[in-house]
Amino acid sequence: MRDPDDASNALARVQQIFDELEEQEEKSGRQRGHDDAERSEAVPVTPEAARELRSICERLHPSDIAWVLEALPLDERLALWNFVGSDRDGEILIEVNEGVRETLIEAMNRDELVDAVETLDTDEIADLVPDLPPDVSAEVQEGLSMEERSQLRAAMSYPEDSVGARMDFELVTVREDATLGSVLEQLRRYKALPDHTDKVFVVDRGGHFRGTLSLSRILVNTPSKVVKDVMQKDVLTLSPLDSESDAAQAFERYDLVSAAVVDEAGRLVGRLTVDEVVDVIREESQEDAFGAVGLDDDQDIFSSVWETARSRWLWLGVNLCTAFIASRVISAFDGTISKVVALAALMPIVAGMAGNSGNQTLTLLVRSMAMGQVTASNIPDVLRRETLVALINGIMWGVISGLLVWFLYRDSGQGMMLGFVMFLAMMLNIILGAIVGAAVPLVLRALGRDPAMGGSVLLTFMTDSGGFLIFLSLATLFFR
Amino acid sequence: MRDPDDASNALARVQQIFDELEEQEEKSGRQRGHDDAERSEAVPVTPEAARELRSICERLHPSDIAWVLEALPLDERLALWNFVGSDRDGEILIEVNEGVRETLIEAMNRDELVDAVETLDTDEIADLVPDLPPDVSAEVQEGLSMEERSQLRAAMSYPEDSVGARMDFELVTVREDATLGSVLEQLRRYKALPDHTDKVFVVDRGGHFRGTLSLSRILVNTPSKVVKDVMQKDVLTLSPLDSESDAAQAFERYDLVSAAVVDEAGRLVGRLTVDEVVDVIREESQEDAFGAVGLDDDQDIFSSVWETARSRWLWLGVNLCTAFIASRVISAFDGTISKVVALAALMPIVAGMAGNSGNQTLTLLVRSMAMGQVTASNIPDVLRRETLVALINGIMWGVISGLLVWFLYRDSGQGMMLGFVMFLAMMLNIILGAIVGAAVPLVLRALGRDPAMGGSVLLTFMTDSGGFLIFLSLATLFFR
Repeated sequence: MRDPDDASNALARVQQIFDELEEQEEKSGRQRGHDDAERSEAVPVTPEAARELRSICERLHPSDIAWVLEALPLDERLALWNFVGSDRDGEILIEVNEGVRETLIEAMNRDELVDAVETLDTDEIADLVPDLPPDVSAEVQEGLSMEERSQLRAAMSYPEDSVGARMDFELVTVREDATLGSVLEQLRRYKALPDHTDKVFVVDRGGHFRGTLSLSRILVNTPSKVVKDVMQKDVLTLSPLDSESDAAQAFERYDLVSAAVVDEAGRLVGRLTVDEVVDVIREESQEDAFGAVGLDDDQDIFSSVWETARSRWLWLGVNLCTAFIASRVISAFDGTISKVVALAALMPIVAGMAGNSGNQTLTLLVRSMAMGQVTASNIPDVLRRETLVALINGIMWGVISGLLVWFLYRDSGQGMMLGFVMFLAMMLNIILGAIVGAAVPLVLRALGRDPAMGGSVLLTFMTDSGGFLIFLSLATLFFR
Repeated sequence: MRDPDDASNALARVQQIFDELEEQEEKSGRQRGHDDAERSEAVPVTPEAARELRSICERLHPSDIAWVLEALPLDERLALWNFVGSDRDGEILIEVNEGVRETLIEAMNRDELVDAVETLDTDEIADLVPDLPPDVSAEVQEGLSMEERSQLRAAMSYPEDSVGARMDFELVTVREDATLGSVLEQLRRYKALPDHTDKVFVVDRGGHFRGTLSLSRILVNTPSKVVKDVMQKDVLTLSPLDSESDAAQAFERYDLVSAAVVDEAGRLVGRLTVDEVVDVIREESQEDAFGAVGLDDDQDIFSSVWETARSRWLWLGVNLCTAFIASRVISAFDGTISKVVALAALMPIVAGMAGNSGNQTLTLLVRSMAMGQVTASNIPDVLRRETLVALINGIMWGVISGLLVWFLYRDSGQGMMLGFVMFLAMMLNIILGAIVGAAVPLVLRALGRDPAMGGSVLLTFMTDSGGFLIFLSLATLFFR
């Protein structure tokens, strides 16, 4: 029986084989005086190892091979890639993430690439074209039929995150006036139905979408019935311009396996299937997690050190700027700090707590907005609630930290005053954090930006600068 | 045609109706001298509004009603809940998130609850039972058949995040020696096939799983063929004890619609379907996002202010502790800071940059580990790479901030020295951040904990305390 553990076992075995090869190489290399730091050179594979690697590749599902390739460092990845049968190259290129795909494509020559891509469906080719050298994609397009070429053009004309870019074209259509018996015969002429065919699509002569007919209905009804009488008309249809994210929510909510994609003129242009939706949801989750720390989502964990470092610069640069601005706020209060040095130790607490609390508000808002549950009508409610929560938490944590500070600095003679300043600043900054945490995603959305991206940088900047400002101003006031 | 916008429109309309009712109530309330701050009392609904609300509830898909209920404040939610036909209560209870479910169940009396739950399948009942009053769940169980009761017991016996808790029991089984013709006849006896039936399951007399037969194969092969000759034997099967997360990855990788769940004795006990998998993936993504800021994932955005505030305490408490510890590190250097006040303004930059950079490493590691791509064999590789990346970024951002500090404090006479301390501390702390960011998830996993939870608190604690310590120690050394 097939098992996802197969892939893990295969990965472990492949890693072991390469480790052994490397060891052998190191031994012989040392004898020949080679420099083994140069790890990116091709791994030399013994005939025995080659045989085993080839058989592993043959045994595994293409998606498993893709997964194993992603988990290998560049030199081993390319060595293994050589042992994949050329008939499966295409499928695997589709499955690996973009960073890894680039490394694989770079290692293939023109003819190999053309052969690999030609095995794919048009919607899959459309996904690959942006990564292919222009001459390869030109040659592939020449090999397509008229219909396929127009499908390819269509698929490539839609924006990246749209249903149009995700849909496929392999679907079964039937006519309204056919009987189920003739539908059954039509189906029997296939060698296999397209993957994820849970329904066939009913169209008229002009290709206009009329409804769907599930395989279940075809099977449970008598063959003499007419399609029109058993088909479902009240079904979800998507437009190729719908966002993939909205479509995914619809699939999730209505538990769909496939859905018709219909253009403005009402013509059936393709279908979206649940396997694509699963990918969309996973990619979105990856994007959110990576986006929150300024990482690109198509990470190759083994891309070069230099590239990896560079890919993180923008984020770190932005954060350095905000940190320096917050630092200028502090240095405006040099005088106060040199009078009461304890302030220096306490101010990061005020900033940090408000940042943490504001991030809770921000995350809640971003998620609720993504679910569509924050509407114009309940925004005031949501804001009011978050402010009240922040007020309660501000008072509570303000009191706790105030008392703690009083206790810690009880011998300095400034303890009570410090504690009071701490209490006030903590409360005010937590409230500020909640307001900013709620406002940032709302403003970003109003500006047409993705509220999930960059919000926390802005928030941290506000709670840091704001926290230092509030705390040190109050201290200046009280310790005059 | 059904459309997810229906739900948005319905939500907007429902909110409008309640707003209007509230306005009317406020007017008449003011005349009667009522206190309208008391918002949690039942919303009085005019007959006209009642009619429209009821018709909206009838028109919407149960999942859409669930979504609308989640987006309404408590009083309006319960008012709308009254207008949902009692035959749909059960389906909706299954669809709403746990926080909202509790509020709905609390508002129902015992008989309503029993009626609602009795409309559900056993696997759905199993999901609800933990939230039901004991007497209700007892009564529901009495109404079940022997087989259903044993299914319910089975479903409830598996841990929450296991395949067993997610699987359902509605599946079609056939025998190996049947012909496709007789399978077709068997299917025709159903009124409708169970949802997400893309295949039937082949079992022997003892209920042992033998293979699967896709509807596609049933339809394209001639009816005279025998099941044994067309069924697929080499298919993925799940154990009820497999984690739902692993199962979701298998569905994703092999593009499945349903899969057999088979117990240790090889008996078919249920099946897992892709709609559950979609939910698992979405819930995991929600859990990760909320978990990262210490929120519970079953949030009701309209739960009471007090409850919401309390639900955030643990997180804020932990963060307060770590912030106070970092603060003690700073106060150990009081003497140095009072000599060179500029240090107070600069130390948060060192801490923050390392925190940001370490968080990138942490996120990358956590995600790669979740995909299973970080294995014992490549951990050293991954660590080496992250350390090198941190070295490059540490030097680069160290130099940049060092120069900036030199420039900012050029007139103080301490500029160059401050800049040099900044450079050294920044570099060392960014490297520390990378090491901690990589080590924390590996250690958490080795301890059997979820690496996604709490990692960033620990990291921030280390980069804050570590950053203050490194920066201020170096300063003490250089400014003696």
